[in-house]
Order: sequence, then structure tokens, then C-alpha cells
Amino acid sequence: MNKIPQSQILVIFGASGDLTHRKLIPSLFELFERKLLPDKFLIVGVSRTRLNTEEYRKSLHESIIGNGKTHVTDNPYLNAFLRNIYYISCNTTDGNAYSTLFDEIDQLRNAAGIDDNILFYLATPPVMYAVIPPFIQAQRQNTSPNGWRRIIIEKPYGSNETEARQLDRLLCGIFPEREIYRIDHFLGKETVQNILALRFANSIWEPLWNRNYIDHIEITASETLGVELRGGYYDSAGALRDMVQSHLMQIMAFIAMEPPSSFEPESIRNEISKVFRSLRPLSPADIERNTLRAQYTDGSLNGTKLPAYRNEPHVDKLSTTETFVALKLYIDNWRWADVPFYIYTGKRLAEKRSEVVIHFRSAPRTMFPGQCCGSSCNQLVITLQPDESIRLRFGLKQPGSNFEVEQVSMDFFYKSLATSRLPGAYERLLLDAMRGDALLYSRSDALELSWHFLMPLIEHWEKEKDEGLVFYPAGSPMPREVTRIHARPYLLKEAVCSPHKNENPL
Amino acid sequence: MNKIPQSQILVIFGASGDLTHRKLIPSLFELFERKLLPDKFLIVGVSRTRLNTEEYRKSLHESIIGNGKTHVTDNPYLNAFLRNIYYISCNTTDGNAYSTLFDEIDQLRNAAGIDDNILFYLATPPVMYAVIPPFIQAQRQNTSPNGWRRIIIEKPYGSNETEARQLDRLLCGIFPEREIYRIDHFLGKETVQNILALRFANSIWEPLWNRNYIDHIEITASETLGVELRGGYYDSAGALRDMVQSHLMQIMAFIAMEPPSSFEPESIRNEISKVFRSLRPLSPADIERNTLRAQYTDGSLNGTKLPAYRNEPHVDKLSTTETFVALKLYIDNWRWADVPFYIYTGKRLAEKRSEVVIHFRSAPRTMFPGQCCGSSCNQLVITLQPDESIRLRFGLKQPGSNFEVEQVSMDFFYKSLATSRLPGAYERLLLDAMRGDALLYSRSDALELSWHFLMPLIEHWEKEKDEGLVFYPAGSPMPREVTRIHARPYLLKEAVCSPHKNENPL
Repeated sequence: MNKIPQSQILVIFGASGDLTHRKLIPSLFELFERKLLPDKFLIVGVSRTRLNTEEYRKSLHESIIGNGKTHVTDNPYLNAFLRNIYYISCNTTDGNAYSTLFDEIDQLRNAAGIDDNILFYLATPPVMYAVIPPFIQAQRQNTSPNGWRRIIIEKPYGSNETEARQLDRLLCGIFPEREIYRIDHFLGKETVQNILALRFANSIWEPLWNRNYIDHIEITASETLGVELRGGYYDSAGALRDMVQSHLMQIMAFIAMEPPSSFEPESIRNEISKVFRSLRPLSPADIERNTLRAQYTDGSLNGTKLPAYRNEPHVDKLSTTETFVALKLYIDNWRWADVPFYIYTGKRLAEKRSEVVIHFRSAPRTMFPGQCCGSSCNQLVITLQPDESIRLRFGLKQPGSNFEVEQVSMDFFYKSLATSRLPGAYERLLLDAMRGDALLYSRSDALELSWHFLMPLIEHWEKEKDEGLVFYPAGSPMPREVTRIHARPYLLKEAVCSPHKNENPL
Repeated sequence: MNKIPQSQILVIFGASGDLTHRKLIPSLFELFERKLLPDKFLIVGVSRTRLNTEEYRKSLHESIIGNGKTHVTDNPYLNAFLRNIYYISCNTTDGNAYSTLFDEIDQLRNAAGIDDNILFYLATPPVMYAVIPPFIQAQRQNTSPNGWRRIIIEKPYGSNETEARQLDRLLCGIFPEREIYRIDHFLGKETVQNILALRFANSIWEPLWNRNYIDHIEITASETLGVELRGGYYDSAGALRDMVQSHLMQIMAFIAMEPPSSFEPESIRNEISKVFRSLRPLSPADIERNTLRAQYTDGSLNGTKLPAYRNEPHVDKLSTTETFVALKLYIDNWRWADVPFYIYTGKRLAEKRSEVVIHFRSAPRTMFPGQCCGSSCNQLVITLQPDESIRLRFGLKQPGSNFEVEQVSMDFFYKSLATSRLPGAYERLLLDAMRGDALLYSRSDALELSWHFLMPLIEHWEKEKDEGLVFYPAGSPMPREVTRIHARPYLLKEAVCSPHKNENPL
């Protein structure tokens, strides 16, 4: 992260909320400590809560300590950082309040000698995404003749295709598309960005990266957590919206995209959209055969009893919302025709693990006893979390055997690096937005295309209600029914095979 | 090593020699301990030295203990093993002695109820390779109507093309080619055999394994030892004969060969011969440009002073024998045309290391700062010894950077395996010969072809004497002059680059 952003003010709407305290401010403090923020920089927190700047700073101080970002209460860096933060109490649903708001921001800006650049961050409930921007526009603060305006929108970005389109139409009428930053915190992860570096900074993968050599691809995000305190939001969203539409399809696009013409954001985003345009639409038969939704019932994990989803706080007792999704998708282009992409994600599973597994086809000739000869032999395993790593599984002869082959793996672990600290996703994404780099943010066409692809499924499930919904005990590896879609998901295989164990013993 | 060999007698000529004591008997004991020898099995040591069986067993007992194969002097296995060994004193240069010899062997065989199978092992000085077989033939012991006869010949197998041909003609007139086992102890190494498993038990390497994706290949065998007590033999041989002709060209053939039609010895050996037939002959200009020979002068390693080669015991004070060789070769076939193969080997170098490095070409487009963009980017490093491993070097973004790329590696270490004991080369080779599997032995046409290829170089150097011979201090990484042939050998690069250090810092 070499380039320091320009002098600017970051205005956070929803400043007293959870996201601001838990993610944004601690990430900004990290950036400050690492001297990556501009010299002339202020953070202005805006929220309805009645607080003064002193009180606000105090609550942030506690959050930063509470997040383990520093253990020293009178850390001089922390105090210096907090001196750049101001709080303005404002009823953001009232258009009349914005004139005063921007007057105050202007005063702060002038006093600090900061250029006329403002980055807005909407860390508010989604309902405000359509409310705040028009009021900003009414104050003519959506552009500036002397600087720039940018806006970061948190997810969820609409809850279906229509809403996403409406929101887009509204925002694009106020800000230019290139100044709208739709956040996907998965893309802020080092390990996700490294999919691009792995593919395009090396010569060896690209020749293999197609239907001639790849049998299928799995993208898994399994969580051990339940819905925690987000039951209200989650029950209206479900796993498909919460994880697939927003995060996992974006990862799929990183895996599937053609080499971009350059590493500029627009080149990359063009390729992402091309992937989504090539998705084979889900026919009713595909939905029947190639999708699965499930919900957790009560169960246990590591000896702790866990309640059923329907008994979680703020969840409907008769909810048919899915907490697990499995999809089998196809990308109908020259590179990927007929190569299945499997996406699995769920809450309250046995293991926390986000992983992309490229399954290469087996060798055309089986010459060695024990040699892997199924549909998936060599595997490139990109573990996004928790043990960030890249591993290549391949066959090698068993020491001392004649020529019996067993599966072993070459491993790269991020923790082996000299600078092994992986910056948090929000650190990276905030800094990128401050610098004006939208590469890791979603473009509106990609979002609309991914919604468009998923709509038949969303509508089918809404119609079906609990018909077709299956259940799994909290803490299980995956719902058993997943094998209807894929006989042997990698996550389940790993659970039964030790890493150096021959899978085809003689 | 699953198949137990048939009942047989192993007759070792040169039974009182160093090879027998240091390698053969300890390896046979290992096989015995691991229950891989036939139930009905005898070893008959034959040598001119006057000893009886009791005395011979005693000296072997000491060797096995001395080699660390067991630390328990009265190991019951060891005693049981030694009871299968007999000694016959015999002047093997005297044809008349063989009748008695075979009578005694016959008696031992009958007493032990062993089938009429004999494996001869010539662990004698090379001059005896042309002497003993005719005497065996004179006793009609070169074949048997009731069983088989096999013969293992130690290297050196001739010291030039003519001698190798003569020896072949002689031996092939006595034993069928398929019963002649020409040993190359490098091929007995697990790590060398694994080149075949790596290539042909996996689908991912073969598509990359050609001139489209590979820039060049290096095969290195560097030793820290000098000539030790072998000065007399070595001074007449030199590094080219001692290492290149015998071992490294065989490894090159494993790397370069086409996929065999089956994993039968003859299929593999056909492919090896094809590689040698495709070698681009060394023109006088090639010899000038693409070869280097060097000899060590006095120097030091880890603080120990080391004498010059010419001052080693049994070495000519004016010797022009090379102790280091570097070659750049081409294999003119569809797969490898214009891909240089570099072979380096030498004694008294700074590091003991045998390694094959496949250098893949760089990506066609450099998109990331720091991305490797020279002629060698991704590297597959197959370390044969000492830290047996397979490593793939590739570019990945530096954590926390924007998209700056650094070189990292995925590693597989044999020591990570559950059964990580790598059997010694002689164990494997002896067992193979006892079982009648010649895959890891050299076939006569391959040997002759490799000699044929090297003869212009051997003759040129013999004519040149000390003209063109360069010198390097004992303990140096490599002679400096090697950069005339290859600007940046991997072995030297590794000495200056830490494994995770960016090679192209911004």
C-alpha cells in the first residue's frame, strides 16, 4: 500500500453504529499507525445520537482497545488519531438538517486546511441508502468544482434485482458511477486478491486453467457461527443473498475470468461482468437438480448445545429462510463450457473454512498402482481462511514402494512470509476508496447481472416456502442432501482423509 | 517393495572389497530386516583373500555395525542374517578355479534346497568385467535349464565408447541382454524415481512440460567431498565420466522423455534411448561455447583448509583431469527444440546438493510491480539430496501491498510423510535385480548412445590437455567461469537470495 491518499474528509453516516465501532474506526486506526493516512485528514462521524465530539472520541477509544488494536490505554498514537475525529449529531432523515451539517463540515475542513475532497461512507441501515444521497445532492455536495466526492455503500445492495436496479438508478443520478463504491468485504481479503496475482503473475497456471484440464471447481464458505444478533436482517435475507450473491459469485468471477487487458479497475470489472453474462441461466430443471437449500435445527458443536435457527432471536418461528445453500453452476463460454462450479455456504457447520478448490482432471493413463484416477486428482486448494494457504495436491510414489503412488501436497502458508501480517479487509478497502481505486468494489452491471442470474431461484424458493427445504443439525459438516448435487465435496472428503493418506489403497 | 524375489543365490565377486562391505551387505541386511528377501536365499562371497566363512561373517558383522545399520552387537536379526552368508576363497583370474567354485556353490544350494537361480554381482575392479564372465560361461553357468542366471555390473562401464561397445559385445555373447544389469546407483534413489511418478501420475505437469512453457532446465550435482581415497580411479576418469555419463544424463532422460506406452522396463528404456538419439551432437563450436571443465586448487570450507586436487593422494601432480564440468545441451525433438539443458557437477564445491530445476517461462504480460519477468520465473525445484523435496516457486502479492508481487514457494518435503524413511539406492537396486526388474538399470544402447554423444568432448579435452582447463579454489560455490555458459545458475542465485525475498524490488 504505497500511495498515500489525497488530503480529504471522511464523513461516516451511521457513526454511532456497530459497523463503525467494530470495523471502520479500528481499521482507520491501523492505517494511521502504519502512516498510510494523508497528513491532512479528518473523520467526521454523523449520527442521530446526541453526543459531543469528546464523548464520541471516548466511545471510539474504548472500541479500539476492545478490538485489541492496542493494549496501551494512553497509547500516544491512539490519542493523536482520535484528535482527527469529530462528531456531528444530525437527524439524517430530515433534509433541513443537512445545511447545518455541511456548514459544520466546511468549518472543520477550513480550520484544518484540507482540500475540498469528501468521501461519504453509508454505514447506516440499508433503508437510508435511498434517503441520504438525495439530501447530499440537495446541498450540492454530490460534486465539487474544487475537488471530488465519493460514496461508499455497505451491503446489502438491494435485496433483489428490482431493488438493486432502483438503487442504482437513484445513485447514478447523483454520483458518477466511478465515484460509487459498493463494498464487498470479501474482496478486501488478501487471499481473495491473491487469486488474481496467482493467476496472472505466473505462467504455469493459465495453460491449465480451462476445460481441457479442469474437471470441476468448488467454492466453499462454511461458518460455525449462527445468526448471532443479526436474526432480524438474516431472516429476510438468507444465505443466498447474504453470501452467494454478494461474495461467492465475485470469487467465482475472479477464478473464472479471462486475463484482463491491464490491471486497471475497469479492465478487471469488464472481465467480471463477462463471466456473469456467460452464466447458464437456471431453468426450472436446473433448480430442481442443481440447487439445495437447508436450515439448521438444534444440534451441538464441540459439546456446546446449539439452538435451531427458528429459535434464534428475532427469527420467525416458522421461518423458511435458508441457512445453507449449495449450487451447481455452469459458465457457458469457451474456457468453461461443461465445467461445473459448485458453491456451498452455510451457518452452523462443523468447520469455519473458506476455500476454493480447483480439481484437475486425472492423467489420461493410469500407470501406477494407487494412482488417483477419478474425476478429481490434482487439486489446487486456495484456503482463504482460517489457515491462509495455497496447496497443490499431487501423486508421488510411496517411499520404499515399488511404484505405488499416494497423494501428497506442496504447501504455501502465508504465515511463512516475513511480513505475514495480513491486513484486514476494511483496511484495504477504505484505503482503496480514499485513493480512488475501485478495483475491489463491485460495479453496478456486475451486481445487476448476479441478481438477474439468481432471481429465478429466489422466486422459486419464495413460492415453494418449506417445500424442498431440508434440515441439518447445527454443527454437522454439511447437510447430507448435498451429495445429491455433488457426490464428494472436498470439505467432506477432507474430514475423512488424512492429508498423506492414500485414497486408493491397494 | 511388495513382491518377494524368487528363491536364489547371490554370488558376489569382490566380496572382500570396500563396496561389498560398505554398501552391498548393509543394504542386504536392511532388506532382510524388512523381510523382503526370499525365505530360501544364500549370499556367497567370492574373493582371492584367504578367509573362512566364520572370519568373513565376522568382518561383515563389523561393517554392518560400523555403518550404523544396527547398534546392538548381538542383534538376533543380524546373527540370523549372517548365517545365510558363505565365503569361498578363489583366484578369479584363474579359469581352473571356477570348476571347484561352482561345485561348492552347488553343494550350498542343494543343502539349502534353493532353486537353480543365481545372481552374480561383479563388485570387482573394472578390469575383471571382461575376465569373470567368460570363465562363468566356460563352466556353463551363464544359463541354466532349471532356473535363471543374472549379472550385475558395477560402473564404470568402459571408459569410452569403444570400451563400452567391446564390453557389451562380450557380455551379450554370454548373457541375454535382459539378464545384464548395469548399475547406476543414482537411479536407485527415491527422489530420482519420483521424477517419473511426478510426471506420469499427475495430469498437471505434462501440459506444461515442453518448449512452449519451459525456458530452460538445470541438473546440478555438487559435492563438498574431494576425491578421498579414489584418486587413482578418479584421475583417469574425471567428472564427465564419473558423474555426467553415468548419472546425470540418465536423470536428464527421465526429465526429458516422452510418456512411455506402459510402465514396463522396456517401454521406459525405449524412451530413454530416444532422448539420447535426439541429442544435438556437440560441434567444435558447441564445445568452445557450451562446455567448461575446471579443477580445484587449494582452498577451504567451513574453516578447514583443503588441498589442491593435484596434491590429493594417487593423483598426478600435473593432472589435467576435470573435477568440475558444466555443459549446455540441446535435445532436438518436438518437445525440447531450443530449450537448453544445463548440467553441472563438481567436487569440493561449497554445498552438497543434487537438484533438478525446471525453469518455466515468464507470463506473457507483466501486470504487477515486482512481477518476475526474466527468462525464468516459475520454477519447479526437485531436490534429490540432501533435503529431499519438491518445491514450486511462484509469484504472489506481498501482504499489505497494493498488488506488488514477490516470489514465494509451495513446498513438499519427504520428511513430512508418515513413512519418511527413504530406502538406500543399493537396497532398491539389489531387490529389483533379484526380482528381475531392470527398469532402474541402464540398457546397452542407452549407454553406448551417451558415450557416443560425449566422445567429441572427451577427445577434445584429451587433446587440449591444460589449455582451456580453468581452476577454482576448493570450497567455492562454482568456478566463476560457469557464467560464460549460463548467466545465472540456480545454485548461485540461491546463495544470494533468501527464499521469500523479492527478486525485483521496486
